[in-house]
Amino acid sequence: MRVALAQINPTLGDFQRNASKILEFCQRARSKKAHLVVFSELALSGYPPVDALDDPNFIEAHQRALTGMISKLPKDLTVVFGAFTKNKKKQGKPFHNSAVVVIKGKVHLGHKNLLPSYDVFDETRFFEPGTEILQLRVPNIGRVAVTVCEDLWGEGIKGLTYAHDPLKRIKPCDLIVNLSASPFSLGHRERRLKAAARWAKKLSSPIVYVNQVGAQDELIFDGRSFVLGGTGKEMTEAHSFEEDLLIVDIENKRYEVRPKEYEIENLRRALTLGIRDFAEKLGIKRVHLGLSGGIDSSLVACLACDALGPNRVTGLLLPGPYSSEGSVTDTQELSKNLKIQTEQISIMDPFNSFLKLLNHWVESDSSGITEQNIQARLRGLVLMAFSNAQQSLLLNTSNKSELAAGYSTLYGDLCGGLCPIGDLTKEQVYALSRHYNSGREIIPKAVFEKAPSAELAPNQKDQDTLPPYNLLDDAVIKIVEQSRPPKTEVEKWLKKALQKSEFKRWQAPPILRVSLHAFGRGRRHPIVNKN
Amino acid sequence: MRVALAQINPTLGDFQRNASKILEFCQRARSKKAHLVVFSELALSGYPPVDALDDPNFIEAHQRALTGMISKLPKDLTVVFGAFTKNKKKQGKPFHNSAVVVIKGKVHLGHKNLLPSYDVFDETRFFEPGTEILQLRVPNIGRVAVTVCEDLWGEGIKGLTYAHDPLKRIKPCDLIVNLSASPFSLGHRERRLKAAARWAKKLSSPIVYVNQVGAQDELIFDGRSFVLGGTGKEMTEAHSFEEDLLIVDIENKRYEVRPKEYEIENLRRALTLGIRDFAEKLGIKRVHLGLSGGIDSSLVACLACDALGPNRVTGLLLPGPYSSEGSVTDTQELSKNLKIQTEQISIMDPFNSFLKLLNHWVESDSSGITEQNIQARLRGLVLMAFSNAQQSLLLNTSNKSELAAGYSTLYGDLCGGLCPIGDLTKEQVYALSRHYNSGREIIPKAVFEKAPSAELAPNQKDQDTLPPYNLLDDAVIKIVEQSRPPKTEVEKWLKKALQKSEFKRWQAPPILRVSLHAFGRGRRHPIVNKN
Repeated sequence: MRVALAQINPTLGDFQRNASKILEFCQRARSKKAHLVVFSELALSGYPPVDALDDPNFIEAHQRALTGMISKLPKDLTVVFGAFTKNKKKQGKPFHNSAVVVIKGKVHLGHKNLLPSYDVFDETRFFEPGTEILQLRVPNIGRVAVTVCEDLWGEGIKGLTYAHDPLKRIKPCDLIVNLSASPFSLGHRERRLKAAARWAKKLSSPIVYVNQVGAQDELIFDGRSFVLGGTGKEMTEAHSFEEDLLIVDIENKRYEVRPKEYEIENLRRALTLGIRDFAEKLGIKRVHLGLSGGIDSSLVACLACDALGPNRVTGLLLPGPYSSEGSVTDTQELSKNLKIQTEQISIMDPFNSFLKLLNHWVESDSSGITEQNIQARLRGLVLMAFSNAQQSLLLNTSNKSELAAGYSTLYGDLCGGLCPIGDLTKEQVYALSRHYNSGREIIPKAVFEKAPSAELAPNQKDQDTLPPYNLLDDAVIKIVEQSRPPKTEVEKWLKKALQKSEFKRWQAPPILRVSLHAFGRGRRHPIVNKN
Repeated sequence: MRVALAQINPTLGDFQRNASKILEFCQRARSKKAHLVVFSELALSGYPPVDALDDPNFIEAHQRALTGMISKLPKDLTVVFGAFTKNKKKQGKPFHNSAVVVIKGKVHLGHKNLLPSYDVFDETRFFEPGTEILQLRVPNIGRVAVTVCEDLWGEGIKGLTYAHDPLKRIKPCDLIVNLSASPFSLGHRERRLKAAARWAKKLSSPIVYVNQVGAQDELIFDGRSFVLGGTGKEMTEAHSFEEDLLIVDIENKRYEVRPKEYEIENLRRALTLGIRDFAEKLGIKRVHLGLSGGIDSSLVACLACDALGPNRVTGLLLPGPYSSEGSVTDTQELSKNLKIQTEQISIMDPFNSFLKLLNHWVESDSSGITEQNIQARLRGLVLMAFSNAQQSLLLNTSNKSELAAGYSTLYGDLCGGLCPIGDLTKEQVYALSRHYNSGREIIPKAVFEKAPSAELAPNQKDQDTLPPYNLLDDAVIKIVEQSRPPKTEVEKWLKKALQKSEFKRWQAPPILRVSLHAFGRGRRHPIVNKN
């Protein structure tokens, strides 16, 4: 049995484009003499549609594309793809998250049984769960069990399990297929392999797992579709972070020895895909960012160039009253290395104008926060003026550690249309920056060596206000990502800081998610909370 | 049978305070010789906890308060209150949303069957549904069926129904109780009465419905707990928008003739409660806002004074290059009428400083958007500087119609910690403003008469850019609130404008919800969406 894994990058709501791509991949699979081609979850609409499912135009256009596409599918190839379909019962949510199986023009539907409702997943909003796993006979393949993404995860991650395990609803079969839209996070590939291996071993059947690739708002899908043999051992894997059509003869149980993956390189590819797809799918031609000479903005500049090419990236130098000399010189060197355009705008004049205007407020604030935030917000204002004037997307440069601590100015350094490194701890920021420097020096050495500083007050250092970054980062992982109870002093400090700054993150830009639990839509903490 | 409806205003996570309040209301019910006292859903924790349920400290403190409180409950009174409890099965979500029934020190639990997962509701994230309705014999009352909020809504609203209806799982009984945390929206009282009447009539049993009162982030709970007789007819209702202990002798089927309610007055009380609880529960002493002389900011000033008293409200006048004379004079009159402090800060100096600095950008932008947004963002900056210097909460003054159209400047007039009128169409803004003027003129007549304008360009009027407000408002209701397909030109225009401005609303402040579908956490549209 020859199976094609069609790993496509759909664009949410671009049904014509997605349908054409599905048909094109079908033809390619056919020309390779595949018997079965498998696409990812909700391949026709893109995943996750969230509340676009509440839009009747979206539903109608999807239905039109679905009907049109099915009529054009080749008859000599079994096609399995993901699409939402109408719940025909009078009760329950309006749609199913379905696998559509087309055999010689005849359509069979299998509905996702397990609907994730945690972190970024909101599938119970619009989907009614299926109550059995579709099993059917496919020409030249045999008995096939068709599952959708979470169906494999009856045992769950983070202790979040389900009341039922679809694995117990299934009869012996010759092949399991799984249509997934599983977002990237560090280490998640291994969790997927484990979930799939549990099925393969239990049923002694090979499993074909096809994942979406491409980014959608905060989420990055890494592809890396794979096939496991009936022993749960990996046979082969599709490309990561790009489209692929992988043809596999399931009987030839050749187990590939895969080159070791380096997570830091995956992180680079994930974030560049996240930036690129956000810009491309929205039709944004240019991006820009404020360059402070610090490690965060240096890294975002590298990522932006990597994602879009240096011609589409502008760096803005915005020196103010407390900027160090290095903030300009290091930035100039970085920009030269990256070959990006820069522009320098001093915020001194408007800052002085504000100091005069708001003198009575600034002077009465002994903490100096008013004056510091004025600087950060003046920079935000200049960066947004550039957005307006040049039709350019502002990239935010906040990292996860400072977002967690609330060490950021709302409407100041929190400005931006996309936050590429907002799910990276400070130590991950350094690690990825070193990775960019591994070939040749792109980010100047001085940037690594200087103590992190917002440069909003004389001789200010992050560490005057924050715990040491290694301890803070560790606390962020334990408290934010793993929801553990705080034990150390730093963890207890962070717990309070988190609650006090929920109001800032409520208004933060979309953050590219690369961990199991990022700030953003997947984390919904109340602002009013006395505990 | 004498029943007490204990309508309390819990503070999320303030378990000690909530427990004390529950014990206090129990004592009051006891002194009135009630046989049964009923509290609202999740009364001990406050509703909705959302991802606070992912915080082990929150869980532990809640459990401690629960155990302590139960031991202190009076033994001669049956007490029913809402609390989350641990799911003891090895599979499924970690908690149940439970009704805790304490009879003579003995604890009985009933778990919510229907878990809402739409709009602002995320109950499937942490709760496992119950599969039967708790029915038990209560001393001096008889057989009682205990339901939690959504359990009554098997028929649903907005066509969102459930696969099962708990009403079909129930045996005849003498009394139904329902513990609710049902957020206010205009017209929702009637929907609740209808849902409860369906149960009362089907079971020929009176029903006691107890709702939470108070605000939590975006949500306002109006209380208005009630009792219906077995015919579904209303017997009596608790206070709206404030705490209450209502004692009812169920056998005396006295049907109250209630004074007609005016929705505009409910709107006023809802929004003032929303502002007051946000400030009080966060310990915020002062609020301020930018006063433009327009209707939106005038209304927010009235609401703020109403909620907190004029001594805690400051109005900032921020004239710029295109401000009309009325923007200052009308504001002064309003402020005098409201007796609030004002301060006037002209943005001219920093604006001119920016024009010089960014001359090359401003001049190259023929649309003039850059220059307009600089003004809006300078005002945002001044307003936020006041926040920092005076520890005052900035109230945002955006309304739903302009939020929908994207007619707002991100980090400019979108600044603020809370958006009180962001769920009001422009016509509702006028209606509520007229309501404030119904006794004496508070908002100057001129404010009603002038054409709405952002005053960011010479002779600019909203209607140069937006459709007429009456048509826009109508489209907002049809497209945003009711998710209907666009039919008219204005509706089609709005549909596009909505998609183009999703990125702005992603970063908007919390919006007090008063309709069935507000912008904010309850509306989750993707930014990238090609349909």
